Amino acid sequence: MIFIGERINGGFKDIKQAILDKNGAVIQEWAKKQADAKANYIDVNIGTASSDPQDYCWMIEQVQQAVDTPISIDNNKIEMFQAALPVCKKPPLLNSVPAIDEKMDALFPLIAKYNASVICLVMDEDGSPKSADKRLENAGKVLAKAMDYGIEPDKIFLDPIIMPVKFMQDQGKEILKACAQFQLLSDPHPHIVCGLSNASNGTTQKKLINRTLAAMMVANGLDAIICNVTDTELVDAILTAELIMNRFIYADSYVEAFHK
Amino acid sequence: MIFIGERINGGFKDIKQAILDKNGAVIQEWAKKQADAKANYIDVNIGTASSDPQDYCWMIEQVQQAVDTPISIDNNKIEMFQAALPVCKKPPLLNSVPAIDEKMDALFPLIAKYNASVICLVMDEDGSPKSADKRLENAGKVLAKAMDYGIEPDKIFLDPIIMPVKFMQDQGKEILKACAQFQLLSDPHPHIVCGLSNASNGTTQKKLINRTLAAMMVANGLDAIICNVTDTELVDAILTAELIMNRFIYADSYVEAFHK
Repeated sequence: MIFIGERINGGFKDIKQAILDKNGAVIQEWAKKQADAKANYIDVNIGTASSDPQDYCWMIEQVQQAVDTPISIDNNKIEMFQAALPVCKKPPLLNSVPAIDEKMDALFPLIAKYNASVICLVMDEDGSPKSADKRLENAGKVLAKAMDYGIEPDKIFLDPIIMPVKFMQDQGKEILKACAQFQLLSDPHPHIVCGLSNASNGTTQKKLINRTLAAMMVANGLDAIICNVTDTELVDAILTAELIMNRFIYADSYVEAFHK
Repeated sequence: MIFIGERINGGFKDIKQAILDKNGAVIQEWAKKQADAKANYIDVNIGTASSDPQDYCWMIEQVQQAVDTPISIDNNKIEMFQAALPVCKKPPLLNSVPAIDEKMDALFPLIAKYNASVICLVMDEDGSPKSADKRLENAGKVLAKAMDYGIEPDKIFLDPIIMPVKFMQDQGKEILKACAQFQLLSDPHPHIVCGLSNASNGTTQKKLINRTLAAMMVANGLDAIICNVTDTELVDAILTAELIMNRFIYADSYVEAFHK
């Protein structure tokens, strides 16, 4: 599993305050915590704290001062991507681009140039799709466009767009079905990623819903996840689902070995 | 989910001793505990404690004195089935019959006569299948035979045969794939069941493996399960997986409401 640590996000009070105060210690601490929890990428999201690319680059620099883990550039403005890409010491992950030609044509050349990877939301001009078929159609559009720009499938992270169980309960089945179909798009298939915590928005059983959905998605090909990497029960459920899918060899110590 | 409580099994020391001592209280207590935990069937397995059908019928009577829950007749000898069927006050579930003509031809008339249901293991004369395709082939054989005897698909519980992750790790994917395919056999499709705990045999993480696999199997159509129904974390994972699959309407209290 490619774990993308979600915690450095201006949506959290402590991070927002740290950005406003230019208090790097808070950001560095969360970078370390998530790297210790085996995050493969540290997601960096400035939220509403600032719209200045310099502030965003400052956040990335704080993370890179603390850890070697690559950055997930979590922003939807092209000027932020453009400013952040040269700052990243390792090839980053761009989070995210929708399946809209104009957006992909603007960003895919940058992705190719910086040897970056990219999370592609399978949404288009009409917004978030409601069916597995529409998700698959948009995923095909993304892969074709990536090919135009010489971006290999292993740099593409398809995101089926998780919907809250509480408000759009019919979407769970569609999302799982879409993931199963994404696996058939190419061989090797593109990565399949999701922003997990959206599933449990507004519910009383956030952690239970998150870890249960994660296991179900692993059964349907999920191999990357934006989540709370410090939630040990979630990580253990994901490890176990991957064990069942034969992605690594069983050892009695498979849980402890990961957390060492 | 159709929960089949596995605890009244001569393989457990307390149950074996209770059979040998004809101590009905122990069996009645486990029947109540499992019924309280919302078991839909109480599985009754005599193990090696006795091969006398009268002892087996005594066990069933103990359960029926304690609770109204239907019985799962868990034995592989036809004389046990024949003795137990008339004792059951409600239509029972027979656990289990392999996809072998001779066995099905002997038992299916009884199942039809008693309006019983039956767990059909998708194994044949060659033993347990190793591939999803072979499992599907045997499942087809079962459904065709059931039709010959006028048994409807909703009385058939297909069991893909869970293998231990520790010793046959490649089987997880095959089992999940088989379940996905079982759903396409008929509309409405037959029930899909598994004996969950076999998955974690010999492992250090039994409960974690059991509940993770259960969630993954629900994503692939599992709607019945032989398990420890008093394992609350397992039951909660199953409930949550069913919620994600839109099998019941979300309510903030969905976990508490089930356990009430």
